[in-house]
This record gives sequence, C-alpha cells and structure tokens, in this order.
Amino acid sequence: MIYFDNGATSYPKPYSVVNAVEKSFSKFCANPGRGGYETAMKSAEMIYNAREAAAQIFNSDAENVVFTPGCTYSLNMAIKGLCKPHSHFIISDLEHNSVVRPLEKLKALGQCDYSVAEITPDKTETVSNFVNLFRKNTVAVICTLSSNVFGIMPPVEKIAREAHKNGIMFILDSAQGAGYLPIDMAKDQIDINCSAGHKGLLGPMGTGLLVISKDMCLNTLIEGGTGSNSESLNQPNLYPDRLESGTPNVHGIAGLGAGIKFIQTVKPENILSHENRIIKYIFDELKSSENIILYSDFYDGVPKAPVLSFNIKNMQSEETAALLAENGICVRGGLHCAPLAHKKFNTLESGTVRITPSWFSSEKDTDFLVNCIKKIAK
Amino acid sequence: MIYFDNGATSYPKPYSVVNAVEKSFSKFCANPGRGGYETAMKSAEMIYNAREAAAQIFNSDAENVVFTPGCTYSLNMAIKGLCKPHSHFIISDLEHNSVVRPLEKLKALGQCDYSVAEITPDKTETVSNFVNLFRKNTVAVICTLSSNVFGIMPPVEKIAREAHKNGIMFILDSAQGAGYLPIDMAKDQIDINCSAGHKGLLGPMGTGLLVISKDMCLNTLIEGGTGSNSESLNQPNLYPDRLESGTPNVHGIAGLGAGIKFIQTVKPENILSHENRIIKYIFDELKSSENIILYSDFYDGVPKAPVLSFNIKNMQSEETAALLAENGICVRGGLHCAPLAHKKFNTLESGTVRITPSWFSSEKDTDFLVNCIKKIAK
Repeated sequence: MIYFDNGATSYPKPYSVVNAVEKSFSKFCANPGRGGYETAMKSAEMIYNAREAAAQIFNSDAENVVFTPGCTYSLNMAIKGLCKPHSHFIISDLEHNSVVRPLEKLKALGQCDYSVAEITPDKTETVSNFVNLFRKNTVAVICTLSSNVFGIMPPVEKIAREAHKNGIMFILDSAQGAGYLPIDMAKDQIDINCSAGHKGLLGPMGTGLLVISKDMCLNTLIEGGTGSNSESLNQPNLYPDRLESGTPNVHGIAGLGAGIKFIQTVKPENILSHENRIIKYIFDELKSSENIILYSDFYDGVPKAPVLSFNIKNMQSEETAALLAENGICVRGGLHCAPLAHKKFNTLESGTVRITPSWFSSEKDTDFLVNCIKKIAK
Repeated sequence: MIYFDNGATSYPKPYSVVNAVEKSFSKFCANPGRGGYETAMKSAEMIYNAREAAAQIFNSDAENVVFTPGCTYSLNMAIKGLCKPHSHFIISDLEHNSVVRPLEKLKALGQCDYSVAEITPDKTETVSNFVNLFRKNTVAVICTLSSNVFGIMPPVEKIAREAHKNGIMFILDSAQGAGYLPIDMAKDQIDINCSAGHKGLLGPMGTGLLVISKDMCLNTLIEGGTGSNSESLNQPNLYPDRLESGTPNVHGIAGLGAGIKFIQTVKPENILSHENRIIKYIFDELKSSENIILYSDFYDGVPKAPVLSFNIKNMQSEETAALLAENGICVRGGLHCAPLAHKKFNTLESGTVRITPSWFSSEKDTDFLVNCIKKIAK
C-alpha cells in the first residue's frame, strides 16, 4: 500500500503511538478522576502528560488543553460556545464543512449570521477583506491554517491581530497543519485552536484538541459527569473539566500523547521540509504534462502547506483516484468536505485528486505515484 | 490488581478487543467514506459490521446505530436533538449527571423544563409517578436501565408503554447494563437507546452508542463533514451520517465491535448470572456485619443489576476505597456523578463504595475483596 492520504488521516502511525494505545489497555485501563486506586491515578497522570505535550507545541498551558473526539467537535464547541443571540462570525472562503455547517445550522435557527471573506494572493488585500466585514456584533473570525484541498495558507497571524484590535476573537482551524506547521497561540494571538489528533499530530482517529486561551469563558455544548463537583446539577466552571464530560478516550489520548512526543523528537520543521520536498518534486514532475491541471499553480507565491490537488483533463477526480487505487495508491478524489474552497477554484463538479504526504513518505513511493499519474494522464 | 470497578470502565477487555484495536492501525487505518481505496473500503466495512452487531443485541437495524464518543454524548445528542422551545422532559430520581446537567443547562436557558419521578419499590406506583407528570408539552421520558450507584432497575418497559400511549418518546440510558441486561428496543418500545461502549459492552473507552428508532427525526448537536453530500452547506438527512460528523473513532469502533461479538459468543444471560452470583455472595458475606451499611438492602424485591453500594459506619466512602486500594483492590468511592440517587438514599455527604464485577471477576478475587472489607469494618 502506497499511502498519500495523510490529509484524511495519517498512516502509518509511529510504532510508539500503536504501542502506547496497546499498553493503555493494561497500564491505564481505568477511569481517570473517578477512582483513587493506582491505575486510575496513572491514567490521570498519563492524560496530564499528554495535555502538557500538547500545550508545549502550541505554546499554551496544560489546563487550557481540552481533549475532544476530533476537530469537528472542537470547532462545534468553539463556535457554539461563543455564539450568543445575534452574533456575527466571519470565516474565510476556504473553510471546511465542520465550520460552515454549524454556522448554517445556527443561522437557520436565527441564532447567528456569518460572512465569508475572500482569501487572495495579496496578504494585505486578504486582511482588508476580513476587516471590511467586521461588525459591532462580530464575536469571532474563524480561519483555517491551511486549505485542506489546496494547501493555501491565509495570513492568520495578521488577521488575528486585526481581529483583536477590534475586540474580536480569533479561532484557528488547524486540522490541516498542526504537527508540521508552526502554531504559537500566545505570539499569534490565537484565542482558540481547534485541531485533529489523527492527522499531522500522528495520533489515533477519534482524537482532537480544543486549546483555549486563559480566562476564556466558553459555554458548554455537552454537559455530564466530570468526576468533579459531582454533587452539583450544574457543569463545573473549572477547565478543562468544564469541557470534558464523560469518560475520556484514554486509549486515544495515550496514542495522541505519543504522537506529539514523536513530533517533538523529529521536530515539526523537519517534517515540514520533508513533506514540502515531496510535494515540490511531484509538482515539478507533473507540471509539464498537458493533461494535468495542478491547482497549486494558482496563488503563486502564497505560502502553501504540503497539500497538492490535481485533476486529469476530462476525467472525474474519483475516476483518477480509482485508477491509482488499482495500483495500490491511496489518494482521495472527489470533494473534500469543503464546498466553498471547491467553488472558489471551480472544482465543485469535478472534485480534485488530493495528495498529502507524511514524514514516512519515501522517494520510491513518490516516484511510483508520479509515474502512475503520468501513465493515466497520457 | 483486583478490579471491581467495571461500572466506571470494564477491565480487563477481552483479548479480541485489544487485538482488534491493535490490528486497526494496520488493517483499517484509513478514513471510511472519504476514500475509494482498499483500506478505506475495509474500514467502512468493519464499521458496518460493528453497526450490525450493535443492532442485533438491541433488536434494531444497522442504519439506526450511531457511534458516539460515549454515553454522555449520546444522551446530550438525544435530549438536545428532541428539545424544542417549551419542551418538557421527565426523568427518574436515579439519573446520572449526564442526563441532569444537560437538562439543567437547557432549563437555565429557558429552553425546556423537566420533572423528576420517584422510583419506588412498587412498580405500579412508580409507573403512576411518571404518568402523573405527563403534560401536553412532554416530549420524552428519560430513564436509566439500572442505577449506576445502587443497581435498582426501574420498570422501563412499563414506563415506555405508558409514555407511548400519550405520544411521548422514551429514552433509555443503558450506560449501566448494556451487554448483560436484556434490551429489546422494538419489543420494549424504546425510541432512543443511549449506551456506553466501554462498560458492559467491553469495548475501549471513548466509544458510545446512540440507537434510534426508525423514521425518527433528531436535530443535530454537532455538524460537519460526513463524507456524504459534501457539496451541501447543510448537514445531510440520511442516518447514521446525519449524526456522525467528522472522522470516526475507527480504532475504538473496531474494539467495540469485537467487544459486542465477545458478548454474543458468551451470551449476555451468562454474564449476568455470573455477575449476580458474585454480588449475591458479597452481599451474603457482608450483611451480618454490624459496621457495614449495604444499600442494596433497600428496595428489597426490586430487580437489581449487579451493582453493590456499601459504606462502613463512621467512615467516608473515599477512605474505605483508599484502604482497599492499599490492598490492590480497585473500587470507586465517593459520589458517582448521580447526586439525585445519592440524595434519595441519603448518601450525598458520605458517598458510597461501589462494587461492580464483570465476566472476568473470579471467586478468589471476590473472597479477597470480602475479607479485606471485613477487616476494615472490624
């Protein structure tokens, strides 16, 4: 199997991740915060260590790190946690359905409104596009760290700065990028960072992160037992308990902690340059082919994450992906749950074939991928 | 380690569960419904098989089975999915904070009201207590299959029948009981069954189930990418996609499927009689001790799940649990996230020590537990 679908979920996971999950069934198989015996305490300690590791890579504090079942949950919790009647949100035109669908739902219920800012190749213009949409009732800007379809990276730190000047929160969707693109919540004024645990962070599927800034008050989306203040019928105010109801995904968090530690050892910048090298190689190999449309060609000069979308002329993206699958190659075709981004690049009908490498992608596999694409495009 | 805290999470998990999770990292490590290549297809197939197994044990259909991150999420999704402005809910006085806290939150927002029905040793009286609270705007009754603190089993099928006669939905909280207590959604007229995956169903932590009845329309609590209808900004209406946004917990579901298959092989009735035998033995051994309060003594003759709460006179439950922990015994002391139930049995201050066995609990361990309790109580 030749895997280039790390944007969907990373594969393979490091051995340390698989080992951590396996060991969690014997070492930590107890409900943390709900028992005073040894494995329950060890389980709580392991989770705290994972929290600290996550805090380190995002420059935040352990108590601000909330473990969630995935980035979709994190985004729902962030958006609905900030939404008050007549709230206004601003999003970029590259956002995923995990941002747009919650907002559409709230809009349909008359609970909020939202505007879409255009990302252009010009940073200053892009920032202005956001600023021009600021309203008195704007509570937050939500922007992706990098487009999950095209890799385009909006100037998030500049947008966040302008938002803050106007008393507006900044929510980052780092589903694509956390683990290899730098995220400094304190420096870049990111109030909420929503992330997947199973993509660039190399953890298991079923894990996500919601990292909030200090002293933030977020309404809860889910309430229940937290193991704390159990006598109260109300959700506790203490973080992260307030946002972590029910038995945590101990096995998943064990794996995610190991994933983050793996990244800290290898170093995000090395992962990024490895993946960028692969994407650049593929791009250079395919760009001369007449029958191939390379969407990363657009927005030249704009910073891009190692995500490459392409299509073969007169072929549906799903068909191309299926032909590659026949050769044992895993890439994703179709729409990537981001209709706004597809509309922007006129690929709502065709979809795109997306290539997303990882730290484990080899030159040999990359060559095989390139040759297969060339053959199909002949 | 001598483990009697299966009410918090089951331990050990069957080998097949740990193996299924481990293998999922190589066999199914792909995002189901988001790719057309082999592992993505296999991953989707594995999930479908787990869905079918869950449907079988609850007498439902695979497409009605929604995988969630835990029972707390399932209950929040059920309650908030049915809540409309001015809704009224009825709950029992044994409910967990995962039922009470979401309702308290909705009540504080002015979005719903709820009443609490008393469970008494008399079935007919209990049913009447619910019926007397029925209002025109009552949308659902929510009742636990068995108290997570005292094991008391309300007559859920009789309550459900009366609810249905009045056009009221019935939501079952089977966090404690699914896997060893019989649940027949069709026969017992259960509209929504909310369950944990990691307790009686022997799956990994981080898994839960929301099983809905056919043709039910549930509002969504979480929206996002579903891999289906990606071009739409709105959540799809198709189940289970509508209620499963974001990358599923593939590893957890693999383990949960294996857990359910293990139960189907051993048979729930055998698990139940094994656990009942253990609880009866402990009860009989401890009942003559003057210094021990056995809360299962109350409600004599009422059906009970294999859950035993006790206290040693003049000792906080946490202290008793800590002394048992020194002997390598894992039981939970304190409040069990169910303040209503503790209030009912006057244990809101002391808490209780809870013993919850499993299929894997041995006679030897049970004897050791009993002897340790007796020594402490001397």
